[in-house]
Amino acid sequence: MDTITVSLGERSYPIHIGAGLLAGSRELVGATAAKQLLIVTNETVAPIYLARVEAAFAERKPRSLILPDGEQYKNLEGLGRIVDELIEGGFHRDACILALGGGVIGDLAGFAAACYQRGIDFVQLPTTLLAQVDSSVGGKTAVNHPLAKNMIGAFHQPVAVVTDTDTLATLPPRELAAGLAEVIKYGLIMDLGFLEWLERALPRLLALDADALAHAIRRCCEIKAGIVAEDEQEHGRRALLNLGHTFGHAIEALCAYGRYLHGEAVAIGMQMAAETSVELRLLDASDAARVGALLERAGLPTRVTGLAADAILCRMRLDKKAGSGGPRLVLLESLGSAVVAPAPDESVLRSAMARCMATK
Amino acid sequence: MDTITVSLGERSYPIHIGAGLLAGSRELVGATAAKQLLIVTNETVAPIYLARVEAAFAERKPRSLILPDGEQYKNLEGLGRIVDELIEGGFHRDACILALGGGVIGDLAGFAAACYQRGIDFVQLPTTLLAQVDSSVGGKTAVNHPLAKNMIGAFHQPVAVVTDTDTLATLPPRELAAGLAEVIKYGLIMDLGFLEWLERALPRLLALDADALAHAIRRCCEIKAGIVAEDEQEHGRRALLNLGHTFGHAIEALCAYGRYLHGEAVAIGMQMAAETSVELRLLDASDAARVGALLERAGLPTRVTGLAADAILCRMRLDKKAGSGGPRLVLLESLGSAVVAPAPDESVLRSAMARCMATK
Repeated sequence: MDTITVSLGERSYPIHIGAGLLAGSRELVGATAAKQLLIVTNETVAPIYLARVEAAFAERKPRSLILPDGEQYKNLEGLGRIVDELIEGGFHRDACILALGGGVIGDLAGFAAACYQRGIDFVQLPTTLLAQVDSSVGGKTAVNHPLAKNMIGAFHQPVAVVTDTDTLATLPPRELAAGLAEVIKYGLIMDLGFLEWLERALPRLLALDADALAHAIRRCCEIKAGIVAEDEQEHGRRALLNLGHTFGHAIEALCAYGRYLHGEAVAIGMQMAAETSVELRLLDASDAARVGALLERAGLPTRVTGLAADAILCRMRLDKKAGSGGPRLVLLESLGSAVVAPAPDESVLRSAMARCMATK
Repeated sequence: MDTITVSLGERSYPIHIGAGLLAGSRELVGATAAKQLLIVTNETVAPIYLARVEAAFAERKPRSLILPDGEQYKNLEGLGRIVDELIEGGFHRDACILALGGGVIGDLAGFAAACYQRGIDFVQLPTTLLAQVDSSVGGKTAVNHPLAKNMIGAFHQPVAVVTDTDTLATLPPRELAAGLAEVIKYGLIMDLGFLEWLERALPRLLALDADALAHAIRRCCEIKAGIVAEDEQEHGRRALLNLGHTFGHAIEALCAYGRYLHGEAVAIGMQMAAETSVELRLLDASDAARVGALLERAGLPTRVTGLAADAILCRMRLDKKAGSGGPRLVLLESLGSAVVAPAPDESVLRSAMARCMATK
């Protein structure tokens, strides 16, 4: 078992990573002292993991809410359902929400915790690789708007993250790959050594080798904890974590959050960012090819199907990373080093994106 | 023109109070440097004040959103409408919302500012006495849930409050009285001298005497700014500002936010709190009578019509002031001195409330 601390003064919290932590571990039960608990989960996760979390907290008689599974339910209506449950259960300000699931559940339940009575505690219990390495850490919570992703949200840190690596054994291969997209992102933006390790360890990760997965999760959480401690509200360096996300969010929104998983859209977006970096002569074409090869070996798409570049560009203008000074984009100066830069001319983006369009 | 500062470190902001400030004053135009502006207002306020605010910011081509008027529109749907407008207008993180209206507009537009892209700036332009003395100051933003008031919200401070006292000239008498309920509250909880001034100055306030109104607004803002600077997120002393609100919120929710204005429900709630204080021998019966007399002279109700004490008690258990340790209530130890205390037995509350039930 490893513990990494996100250092944010009074709001510091631990990330516990280990096998079997959901099965009544001290780390889980001690994550919150709240007497009123609401477990928020979804229809896919509940049959596998809800009983053991309920059992761990049995003395406190937790309430549970099971939502439908999918990014398309991460909206204001989903927020309303959690608040209904909290109010029906008579939950007070000192209650705590346990978010048991992937990134959608974490973002939605976390935002409900941010808003309910202007803020109550919550604990992240991430069950997907993507949530374990990225979305459960750092306090970004949000719901989507039909036109753009994560448009309505809050910075609200959890009081603890408890990552049970055993949950990855039941993760569908497509979800595993989607998580690997974010894992690869950390290597690309700031750790060439980790990227090279990923290139070597990929077969073991895909085969669910416990040691390799634990190492990857730990390294990603270390990197993210460091960035969040330095720039909690994304005024600077934290924006590097958005590599591929401006393209990716546009693709997700255009597909109504249905066709691509978040990690898949990010994979395409990272390839587009790499190709843009090549267009701008920041990055060698061979490095962009190396990015593409790794993503494809991980089972991820690097080309978008059925969307026009125009539509993606148009939707990108709505992205949160834009400021009145114009849109900004995370680019690669080299493998292992990202920068935030003003978005280049659309002609540059079009050339880059053209290399990431499926011909079908 | 007076300026009071709410001291919150980097998030400190001014409250400007004066006649004619909405007519292109330096205080208004200088309240934000943002280039993208959305004015959020309602159907009652827009015909009177929107044009002058739009004119003041004409160079920046502000967008305007006119919502229906009423507490019943302060809900997640209203939040969605503001976010729709922000997204359609392509608003970025450095945009600013101007909340032009009473407490409902301020709470709703403020919550939209708190959530949109995880937080953008907003300026309060309160046009009702209630908003000017209370809800526009202190950063409490929220929407209602059908079962309970202000259940979904955030602490999000405005970057400025610009109070044009001229707006009170167009305020309907019932709205003026509702604002006076909160004015009287400040006297009751911590300033006997101000309460005595109110007893004397009430006829001038009801006659819209500009000097008397300005004095009242200034004194209320001073008291509130001091409390908020000390206890921004209501872990302690700020709770005193909720005198009458636990009863009041229950009454409002039971009437589906329709029959009573917020200030009217608070007036009844303050009388109930005073009577509860008498039951507990904290307060003399003559002092409770003095509270009632002042409220009634201000044109406010002190008895509730058509609701059973049981229903109010039941709804009060949902109130935010409750903790797992049981509900808490703001009571009066004397006129000008309030305390937060554990809620007494329901039998005590019933006896107190019985004196505040209309016989009809």
